[in-house]
Amino acid sequence: MSAAAERIVTRCRELARVSDVPGQTTRTFLSPSTREAHALVGGWMREAGLRVWTDAIGNLRGVVGAEYAPRLVIGSHLDTVINAGAFDGPLGVVMGIELGEAIGREGALPFSVEVIGFSEEEGVRFGKPFLGSLATIGELNGDLLRSTDADGVSVEQAVRRFGVDAPKLDEAILAPNVLGYVEFHIEQGPVLEAEGLPLGVVDAIVGQTRMQLRFLGHANHAGTTPMGHLRRDALAAAAEWIVEVERYAAGCRGLVATVGRVEVPGGAGNVIAGECLATLDVRHAADEVRAQAVGRIADAAERAARARGVGVETRTTLDQPAVWMDSTLTRLIETACGRTGAQVRRMSSGAGHDAMIVARRVPAGMIFVRSPGGVSHHPEESVLVSDVEAAYAAGLEFLRTLRDDCAMLEDLVGNALRYAGEVRHA
Amino acid sequence: MSAAAERIVTRCRELARVSDVPGQTTRTFLSPSTREAHALVGGWMREAGLRVWTDAIGNLRGVVGAEYAPRLVIGSHLDTVINAGAFDGPLGVVMGIELGEAIGREGALPFSVEVIGFSEEEGVRFGKPFLGSLATIGELNGDLLRSTDADGVSVEQAVRRFGVDAPKLDEAILAPNVLGYVEFHIEQGPVLEAEGLPLGVVDAIVGQTRMQLRFLGHANHAGTTPMGHLRRDALAAAAEWIVEVERYAAGCRGLVATVGRVEVPGGAGNVIAGECLATLDVRHAADEVRAQAVGRIADAAERAARARGVGVETRTTLDQPAVWMDSTLTRLIETACGRTGAQVRRMSSGAGHDAMIVARRVPAGMIFVRSPGGVSHHPEESVLVSDVEAAYAAGLEFLRTLRDDCAMLEDLVGNALRYAGEVRHA
Repeated sequence: MSAAAERIVTRCRELARVSDVPGQTTRTFLSPSTREAHALVGGWMREAGLRVWTDAIGNLRGVVGAEYAPRLVIGSHLDTVINAGAFDGPLGVVMGIELGEAIGREGALPFSVEVIGFSEEEGVRFGKPFLGSLATIGELNGDLLRSTDADGVSVEQAVRRFGVDAPKLDEAILAPNVLGYVEFHIEQGPVLEAEGLPLGVVDAIVGQTRMQLRFLGHANHAGTTPMGHLRRDALAAAAEWIVEVERYAAGCRGLVATVGRVEVPGGAGNVIAGECLATLDVRHAADEVRAQAVGRIADAAERAARARGVGVETRTTLDQPAVWMDSTLTRLIETACGRTGAQVRRMSSGAGHDAMIVARRVPAGMIFVRSPGGVSHHPEESVLVSDVEAAYAAGLEFLRTLRDDCAMLEDLVGNALRYAGEVRHA
Repeated sequence: MSAAAERIVTRCRELARVSDVPGQTTRTFLSPSTREAHALVGGWMREAGLRVWTDAIGNLRGVVGAEYAPRLVIGSHLDTVINAGAFDGPLGVVMGIELGEAIGREGALPFSVEVIGFSEEEGVRFGKPFLGSLATIGELNGDLLRSTDADGVSVEQAVRRFGVDAPKLDEAILAPNVLGYVEFHIEQGPVLEAEGLPLGVVDAIVGQTRMQLRFLGHANHAGTTPMGHLRRDALAAAAEWIVEVERYAAGCRGLVATVGRVEVPGGAGNVIAGECLATLDVRHAADEVRAQAVGRIADAAERAARARGVGVETRTTLDQPAVWMDSTLTRLIETACGRTGAQVRRMSSGAGHDAMIVARRVPAGMIFVRSPGGVSHHPEESVLVSDVEAAYAAGLEFLRTLRDDCAMLEDLVGNALRYAGEVRHA
């Protein structure tokens, strides 16, 4: 085991103790403990030989290598959910520092490495995720800046109080010479563990549809109303639909569909449910598969309702397309994994990540590290040191190849230029 | 149409305006408006030639005919739910007064008629239903008397404040010469309306089982946890079970089974439900059918849970046996209906009634009057005057036959003696 992997895990755990709430890990966007987190992580960056600054949205950034050389960005986020674990976010930042230090120590580079600790990914404080990464692609608009937290403080005010300069937001935008963005992140799911694999290479971040459904039947006496057509049971209709949602998703490769909440407003044990509210969450890497699934699932709700004289209303609250990781970058990451002997699988990410935002501007790739027990957003969130070692080795292999293989570097530079052109014309 | 039916409906509507809450009908046990209700209904009783008193639990009672003659009791309750309709309860009391007056006016009787307006059936104030009828069978025990309402007032105190005398509770017990109890009540369900019938003759009040179920799965990320065995979705398990509850009940004649409430504690649209709470209400006139149904339904919960790696806990909160109406009395009521030309059906009552309590001591029978729209416990609760007319005619026919047919009277007296013997030895 390399000292690097041990140090990465140790540093994540050390950073986890920097919290707004003693005894847990809670570090929301630009909250008091963020300053201490920046001091700690910034110190590691400096020790690693990086030039460090904090941008206008509070992202902590460090660069090693020549300013105008093609730049590879490695990053993830430093904010956390309430009572979080130690690795969701920080793992990718600390990994970036370790990799930047290692490759920098090996001598002159034909490219630079920038490490970003994004200030806001989880969206806890303002209910708006990805503020940090949005700033780096110039999409932090006025509406977002005027969002307020529970205390009525706006993003703009929060940034000013933190001591960085919102008017200089343009300076937070990624350098034009960025050839790609790589994010290491824990999987936050059970797939790699179930397959006994340390790492996954992400090909896409799934698109999501979220809906609210309202089944409308008729409240009646549970004792005096016989079964059959004299009942209009909104909950029974919803239940048949929930079973159908599960059945349909299980039969459609890569699809997840979840009814997470159900409620019978004003319901009682001895009253037939007159109304039932339910949520729906559908995700797939292919937008057309997701669209078809949503259609089928809505049809199933209609059928289950109609069979009981129940009405159903659906309201779409989110319809977010899938984001594909860059195929060239992803292939090169996969090759690096293979050369270090790490067993990997391609997989889609069921959750959103900064890579999803950054991919709007530059080629992006992601490596997932196995999550023991699939646990995340919880103090028991963990990683295996051997998996971190595998991720570190793959990352270092990737950087060494990029340094030693002029064709690969040229390939990625050209790829980034094409990518920017496609994004502009999309 | 007889004037009697019109008057019964008019009086129910007049009584509905006697309320603790202006503009709605809310008249809970011994609440302020009860005194006014007693004055109004007691006045009607006196006009009808009844000797009137209020017993020690606040039941309003009136008798016409000789004190020691065999006595037929006709009754129902005067209390209401919050924001009630005009007929649930009062219909049976006002009907009793009308019938007592009519038969009394026709000359000397070989029996007496007692009309009871029970003081408490709904159980709103103390959360304990049937206090009035329990007192008439001597089963109002100390625990019930010490129950307190939302203001900390006990039943005993409430009775004393109302001005009746709780220590004299024994005097509230039905006279030993009662040959039967007949209750007219709105159906509170949609069956008679669906079949186009004005009246139903109740053969049993169904038994009830109520349960609380807790499905215990594992909360996980709805995006990163694939379908299949890596999910332990408590809501999906509950949903499959709810569909099975409905399917099983639909296939079992006379059974009703209802899941009225479902809840996912701490649930969110993007989180797989780790826990799901649900209620179950099962009713049938045959206790063995109900017991078998409860067993099958519990098995179905186990199966639906096990298929998803989910656990399930069940807790029975009520297990109340069915109560059969007296077969002799029921047959005679049915004959009277038939002689007046009223089309009736035998049916079980899916809800509890005072007759269920009184039947513990004396032969009891019930006549249901069609509920338009099946509506009850709601200001829109109603009756058709023609249905009230049919019920009144059947009741009067029953009383006239009892007066004119010595064999029938002897039959009922013997029946009541046997009934008392069986009850004592049960």
